[in-house]
Amino acid sequence: MALTRIGVFLLAVAGMAAGQVSDAPKHGADGGLLYPSDYREWVFLSSGLGMTYGPAASPGNPRFDNVFVTRAAYKGFLQSGTWPEGTMFVLEIRSATSEGSINKGGHFQTGLAAIEVEVKEKGVWTFYSFGSGDVAVGKAFGPKESCYACHGTNGAVDNTFVQFYPTLLPIAKAKGTLKAAK
Amino acid sequence: MALTRIGVFLLAVAGMAAGQVSDAPKHGADGGLLYPSDYREWVFLSSGLGMTYGPAASPGNPRFDNVFVTRAAYKGFLQSGTWPEGTMFVLEIRSATSEGSINKGGHFQTGLAAIEVEVKEKGVWTFYSFGSGDVAVGKAFGPKESCYACHGTNGAVDNTFVQFYPTLLPIAKAKGTLKAAK
Repeated sequence: MALTRIGVFLLAVAGMAAGQVSDAPKHGADGGLLYPSDYREWVFLSSGLGMTYGPAASPGNPRFDNVFVTRAAYKGFLQSGTWPEGTMFVLEIRSATSEGSINKGGHFQTGLAAIEVEVKEKGVWTFYSFGSGDVAVGKAFGPKESCYACHGTNGAVDNTFVQFYPTLLPIAKAKGTLKAAK
Repeated sequence: MALTRIGVFLLAVAGMAAGQVSDAPKHGADGGLLYPSDYREWVFLSSGLGMTYGPAASPGNPRFDNVFVTRAAYKGFLQSGTWPEGTMFVLEIRSATSEGSINKGGHFQTGLAAIEVEVKEKGVWTFYSFGSGDVAVGKAFGPKESCYACHGTNGAVDNTFVQFYPTLLPIAKAKGTLKAAK
């Protein structure tokens, strides 16, 4: 009994170390996605400012977009150049500010404007909206929303914009998982 | 004997889960800091574009700065609003590009331009340069370099620019660790 308990504990702790526990997508009773409240502890992939293809793009008032991916998915990508089952991406949109403290030019990040999540389950990618981070259970975007067609057509690896993630692009090239001309 | 082995293993795995193993600064024989090659798996704090106070600022050709902190230090900050012994920050400077793939405006991140690391050991913060990420053992900046005076004078919490880290600023305010008027 004591050894069984130790075994269960070991599995749980080993799972935490590999990021397999808190990483997996969790769904509510209605199928919505539970807000992944620890996404700021996931792996950061890149940040852009005022990129014009984003869903919350606002050229006159540019915003930052930060992209995070679950730790287990990141480790999977380093090995294979592809995204494993259960991969979750968070797209976090933040306001940009120029003047504050000692900063006099350029832009730094301030308040949260929007959170969107992309999840790969059973091989299918689904997008969920979490408003400005104040939604506990995200509702899936409908299949006709532009995110599906844009990611499917333009994503350099699978449904994802690896062409904009400078540390992953060389891995996809080396593993031969990059679509042509993206 | 078997139980002792299990105990040692448990400690090791629990340490990995808490980020206490790979997180600690490591020094070479000459006192230089070993390159923390896994910093992209640390916790991302924020990103700026063309901020004018940075050590590698270049207003005419703005660059991104990404800031990462060790996982154990991040968890310590969430609890206390201060940085524990052994905290390491990485400042990663990357080039900014406007046109590429489907992007037609704004800026996204591309090649690595510079890596600098700030470490808190025995209560003292030291800065190390790693060139453009191609230096295996970073040499400490001399005490008269501007980074020391600027961080010491202007950092909102201890020696660090928490005023530019949107998820940490509210924690410092709540914990009462923010210096006045930063």
